[in-house]
Amino acid sequence: MHRTKVKVIEDALDANTTIANANRDDFDRHSVTVVNLMSAPGAGKTTLLQRVLKDMKGVRVGVVEGDVQGSLDADRLAHLHLPVVQINTDSGFGGECHLDANMVRSALRSLPLEEIDLLIIENVGNLVCPAEFKVGEDIRIMVASVTEGEDKPVKYPLMFRACELVIVNKVDLLPYLDYDLELFNHHLDGVHPDVPRMFVSAKTGEGIEGLRDWFVELASKRTAGAAN
Amino acid sequence: MHRTKVKVIEDALDANTTIANANRDDFDRHSVTVVNLMSAPGAGKTTLLQRVLKDMKGVRVGVVEGDVQGSLDADRLAHLHLPVVQINTDSGFGGECHLDANMVRSALRSLPLEEIDLLIIENVGNLVCPAEFKVGEDIRIMVASVTEGEDKPVKYPLMFRACELVIVNKVDLLPYLDYDLELFNHHLDGVHPDVPRMFVSAKTGEGIEGLRDWFVELASKRTAGAAN
Repeated sequence: MHRTKVKVIEDALDANTTIANANRDDFDRHSVTVVNLMSAPGAGKTTLLQRVLKDMKGVRVGVVEGDVQGSLDADRLAHLHLPVVQINTDSGFGGECHLDANMVRSALRSLPLEEIDLLIIENVGNLVCPAEFKVGEDIRIMVASVTEGEDKPVKYPLMFRACELVIVNKVDLLPYLDYDLELFNHHLDGVHPDVPRMFVSAKTGEGIEGLRDWFVELASKRTAGAAN
Repeated sequence: MHRTKVKVIEDALDANTTIANANRDDFDRHSVTVVNLMSAPGAGKTTLLQRVLKDMKGVRVGVVEGDVQGSLDADRLAHLHLPVVQINTDSGFGGECHLDANMVRSALRSLPLEEIDLLIIENVGNLVCPAEFKVGEDIRIMVASVTEGEDKPVKYPLMFRACELVIVNKVDLLPYLDYDLELFNHHLDGVHPDVPRMFVSAKTGEGIEGLRDWFVELASKRTAGAAN
């Protein structure tokens, strides 16, 4: 019985990998750099995007919003006048807790890839399963909020290990929390010692300029590579 | 293909229901009231338990801690000198994002049910799948932190619909957030209008006495029922 269950899961992951590779091919053909943005619920992914995407210095951005239900996040980005597609994962079985490659593939039909340099895929808020399903991205970013406590890298190690950047958000609240930034760094070093980390506040704007530059440079690398 | 996938999932849920009912029988035989405590990562479930379980007015409490990895949460409760069992869900496939009935069943062997009136099962931090897997509980409680924003009932409706109490934690941070409590209540009313809600701070202790009384009364109901 256990063996059968494992077999089914492996098949599901293989199918996901196949479709993720197809997405990857489409992104490559259009020279689109793709970010898979992951976090726990309420860590501030959408608020970060509202801040960062205001002025991307010529980089053309598109966004895929993943939520179990609703289009609140996509609505919040409407004023930026970017191509935004909302994916809802609630069809059947109470809602999927992550985006998979096929959901992203279905969204691609509604996105003008030829007019996008950087595609940001905001995953469902969850610290477990999104790390297990690649969607064709170049880069994975984890957003951790200081209000969640320092112990999350220990409790959700795969998520913090599977990313290329950790954004620590809501640092404006540090004076009101018993949060030990050194302890967080220590826990993060335990699972992913070399991962770069940026400390920001989507509310006050602290660190946002640096994050924007990081995104702009990421997109430029691809464009420069494609030009060669 | 799609039909096959649905069939597998239905089978998995049926197996879970069967084992949840077996857990339920064991709990009934020992007159144990069982709470399934759910939230997003970092909402403060363990800190709440540290506060509430300090003096339970004669009610004998046991705890099951569910985490993907580690025993940090169980360690934090050690000073309370209660029976605590840690479940790790990380065997295979990068970690399960929820507790299921079989995991809880495996923990029951290590718990002296005959010496427990109230068993609190702290689920994996996740706002999607824990709501889909019953473990034999009487009551489900959702902990929502004000730092997560007001929109979570809209984005994760099943979780807020499947619970009998919503605890809104970290109200000590309200002066430093743009959080609209009325808007949260409005969103919660939209998915579960009659659910009771308690506003607390595990940090300052605000509302904790009321929550403790709620737990004590919950456990007493069962004991009174068993005496008849």
